[in-house]
Amino acid sequence: MSVIQVDLNSDMGEGYGAYKMGDDAAILDIVTSANVACGLHAGDPEIMARTFSLAKTKNVMVGAHPGFPDLWGFGRRIIPYTPGEIERLVAYQIGAAQGLSAYADHPITYVKAHGALGNLTQTEEDIAIAIANAIQAVDKNLVCVTFAGAVMERVCKDKGIKTAAEVFADRAYDEEGHLVHRKIPGAVLRDPVQAAERMLRMIQGGGIETVSGKMLPVHIDTICVHSDTPGAITMASEVRRLLEANGVKVASFASPQGL
Amino acid sequence: MSVIQVDLNSDMGEGYGAYKMGDDAAILDIVTSANVACGLHAGDPEIMARTFSLAKTKNVMVGAHPGFPDLWGFGRRIIPYTPGEIERLVAYQIGAAQGLSAYADHPITYVKAHGALGNLTQTEEDIAIAIANAIQAVDKNLVCVTFAGAVMERVCKDKGIKTAAEVFADRAYDEEGHLVHRKIPGAVLRDPVQAAERMLRMIQGGGIETVSGKMLPVHIDTICVHSDTPGAITMASEVRRLLEANGVKVASFASPQGL
Amino acid sequence: MSVIQVDLNSDMGEGYGAYKMGDDAAILDIVTSANVACGLHAGDPEIMARTFSLAKTKNVMVGAHPGFPDLWGFGRRIIPYTPGEIERLVAYQIGAAQGLSAYADHPITYVKAHGALGNLTQTEEDIAIAIANAIQAVDKNLVCVTFAGAVMERVCKDKGIKTAAEVFADRAYDEEGHLVHRKIPGAVLRDPVQAAERMLRMIQGGGIETVSGKMLPVHIDTICVHSDTPGAITMASEVRRLLEANGVKVASFASPQGL
Amino acid sequence: MSVIQVDLNSDMGEGYGAYKMGDDAAILDIVTSANVACGLHAGDPEIMARTFSLAKTKNVMVGAHPGFPDLWGFGRRIIPYTPGEIERLVAYQIGAAQGLSAYADHPITYVKAHGALGNLTQTEEDIAIAIANAIQAVDKNLVCVTFAGAVMERVCKDKGIKTAAEVFADRAYDEEGHLVHRKIPGAVLRDPVQAAERMLRMIQGGGIETVSGKMLPVHIDTICVHSDTPGAITMASEVRRLLEANGVKVASFASPQGL
Repeated sequence: MSVIQVDLNSDMGEGYGAYKMGDDAAILDIVTSANVACGLHAGDPEIMARTFSLAKTKNVMVGAHPGFPDLWGFGRRIIPYTPGEIERLVAYQIGAAQGLSAYADHPITYVKAHGALGNLTQTEEDIAIAIANAIQAVDKNLVCVTFAGAVMERVCKDKGIKTAAEVFADRAYDEEGHLVHRKIPGAVLRDPVQAAERMLRMIQGGGIETVSGKMLPVHIDTICVHSDTPGAITMASEVRRLLEANGVKVASFASPQGL
Repeated sequence: MSVIQVDLNSDMGEGYGAYKMGDDAAILDIVTSANVACGLHAGDPEIMARTFSLAKTKNVMVGAHPGFPDLWGFGRRIIPYTPGEIERLVAYQIGAAQGLSAYADHPITYVKAHGALGNLTQTEEDIAIAIANAIQAVDKNLVCVTFAGAVMERVCKDKGIKTAAEVFADRAYDEEGHLVHRKIPGAVLRDPVQAAERMLRMIQGGGIETVSGKMLPVHIDTICVHSDTPGAITMASEVRRLLEANGVKVASFASPQGL
Repeated sequence: MSVIQVDLNSDMGEGYGAYKMGDDAAILDIVTSANVACGLHAGDPEIMARTFSLAKTKNVMVGAHPGFPDLWGFGRRIIPYTPGEIERLVAYQIGAAQGLSAYADHPITYVKAHGALGNLTQTEEDIAIAIANAIQAVDKNLVCVTFAGAVMERVCKDKGIKTAAEVFADRAYDEEGHLVHRKIPGAVLRDPVQAAERMLRMIQGGGIETVSGKMLPVHIDTICVHSDTPGAITMASEVRRLLEANGVKVASFASPQGL
Repeated sequence: MSVIQVDLNSDMGEGYGAYKMGDDAAILDIVTSANVACGLHAGDPEIMARTFSLAKTKNVMVGAHPGFPDLWGFGRRIIPYTPGEIERLVAYQIGAAQGLSAYADHPITYVKAHGALGNLTQTEEDIAIAIANAIQAVDKNLVCVTFAGAVMERVCKDKGIKTAAEVFADRAYDEEGHLVHRKIPGAVLRDPVQAAERMLRMIQGGGIETVSGKMLPVHIDTICVHSDTPGAITMASEVRRLLEANGVKVASFASPQGL
């Protein structure tokens, strides 16, 4: 009988100059993949290099985490770039992340779109194609982390880009398997134990559990945990603890046993 | 008897959004190497990708042209970053340029520091080392374009980084072979014919001609011509014309006959 | 019989650092009101102060020209700020323009929203209210330049803010009196003589002439001419010449004979 | 016998978008003057308006806190602007602060230069004149908060600008009355009680106490306390408590009993 394996990823390196965001050192002790901001919605070369180095010392895989150029909005707003412009914005950010991860001697192995840009890849094919084009042009060996079941997943498969399908530890899913909008009550899970138990059910059950309790079968490679919300570290710890206590192996999708 | 060869390089891709700077299309018909701004002192992903693509169609080699993050000052002011910070800033920009030049299917082959950052490399060893470290960490095969005779040249040689030594078509040199400061009368040559004739003397003579007419022997690989000053295109054309009329081969230092 | 009077306004001070945009000195010899960018979509303190000073020497009235904080997009894209955020963004920019116009000893007398922000005020009441609130809070004596017939015009009247109704010399109007979208053929008039003749008909006829030739009666206080398009100076000159040749007085709406 | 009075001021509104800095709500319960960042080294229109409003509800006076345009460096680095450019940068920021403080119905009454810009005003006359010129041009009724004994103080007096002389609760002073550089051990006081006792001695003694214990007689109007360092709130509280326990009246210099 094969062991179930899953990756834990978290957004990281999201400060800017004197500004801090999240507790990267703490979360790097828990996760297996670190999504590093690339300087346009958050992050700067100092923080990027430091985050790549710290991840290396903790044996955590690293990826580029490109977003809209919107420091003020932290990449959470849809800025009206065309798909073509998004292609170039993402290629720029992947390249910058490659430069600084090479500098830190810990090269990136994947790409995950941030915030509003990531959300668009659930349903918007032209945006998904733009990001896939950027990955393919810059380095076709990079894995693309996608929402499980997203349009982005299919687009990558069509182009021969490896994917890692992701679910969110603290976000509710509707009956189509899409994230419930943050403004709707119950959209964000706050209880670490409930969140961890739901993740265990989803990983063992091989699907997304919707708000009604239904299980939509999808393949899941990685779980996103946050580092910058109250109680984030506690929830991330509990998710990892419960998974491992139930025999789930927590390891990077980019490690030999992964993808 | 061997043919003398020299490269012509020019700064390029220096607009930003709706803002234009220089006549890149015209200068790309004249030069053999295009130094492409990387988005921090000038340039943006759209302009970078477009410039790399245009250079490819014109068979012009391309390089990263990193500068201080100072869009307002166009990279012409010394911003007080530490050498360590400059290392990361340059690694970031080289990476971004690699990303977008790969996207344009015309990879960069060299790095040349821009404006105030470039000027510092004439004499400041810690800055030169920082830039060399960045190049070495990101891609040690990249050539570093340095002022002929600069501290940067020696630092690169010590580290095993290939260099291409540069002189400026329109700038006067003092008796130490340094650029005469722009504020001193005569620092900038305006006459295309005089500038071209001086370049021919320097390339044929194998050295830097100082304001007093003395020739300081140095190896010269490339001549920098501008694209964004009045009469820039005329001067660049005349330099190329006169060199070729006198049997000098104008070709990229990164081409087979080059370095 | 009373003399018909109209103002000519133009966007100005739209460079940034080393970047230039438009020929401000030339257009300041033609117009009677200068809309000065406030540093978020274009402009910087140097350019603002210089533009206010130059306008003073040419006896041209000045106004704040606030836009979305989007230097890359030049304020032409709708950035998803809430109405409340827009209130504060506009208050900030009006204040900055007051600071620098006081510094140049030529205080602003009006506000005109730029680009995408201005376009929204044609039809979006919440945006119009946000801008009106900002004007009222910062300085209720400032005039608001609005598209003739726009929602913004009514909102200002309701709040007791003085308005100056504007038409565009080079833009076609649809049958509702709205601007024809730039992507539709014929949306932008290129011929200086045709543009000037249409303006004369509109000023003399007291209304907006639509693409079908219909005249929608509205009060017109000011005509917007551009400074940064090919042929802009020629068109602006011709508009002014033809109006004056036909007895129309060209003067600021903020002058004694104006509003 | 007259009551000794002193103001307590603190830098405030130093976040940016999603980024937080300092505990403004807590410090506003302690201080009598709030120095509000103007959006170039920190702050944005949302934070500025919110900070002005919160200060109003707590009856705390507000001032503009202009700095170098250097969000990454948080205004702590000397960016090489000319004195003339600094004049315009400061006029811009004062204007923006006036706009948003008017919007919050709590107009600014003073200006205090931030970080590296403020430090320069201790000794650099051309920078002091630039800031004084900006104040005078935009609103000559604004008070200028200056380091006690700084060149800025004399420059303001020469121009007829009111000043409020400031000492720092947590910074050591050398024998000339200048701040000991942060890199020198003992430059920053960490102990709240020691800091408070020193402030009491300085306010009662009417002078700056140097590291050797000498008292340099100068007039002191205001004490700067921080909000963004560990233990900042505790130190600020202790300074206020000890002063009041010893009969010192803590009130704004801009209040009737003040300047």
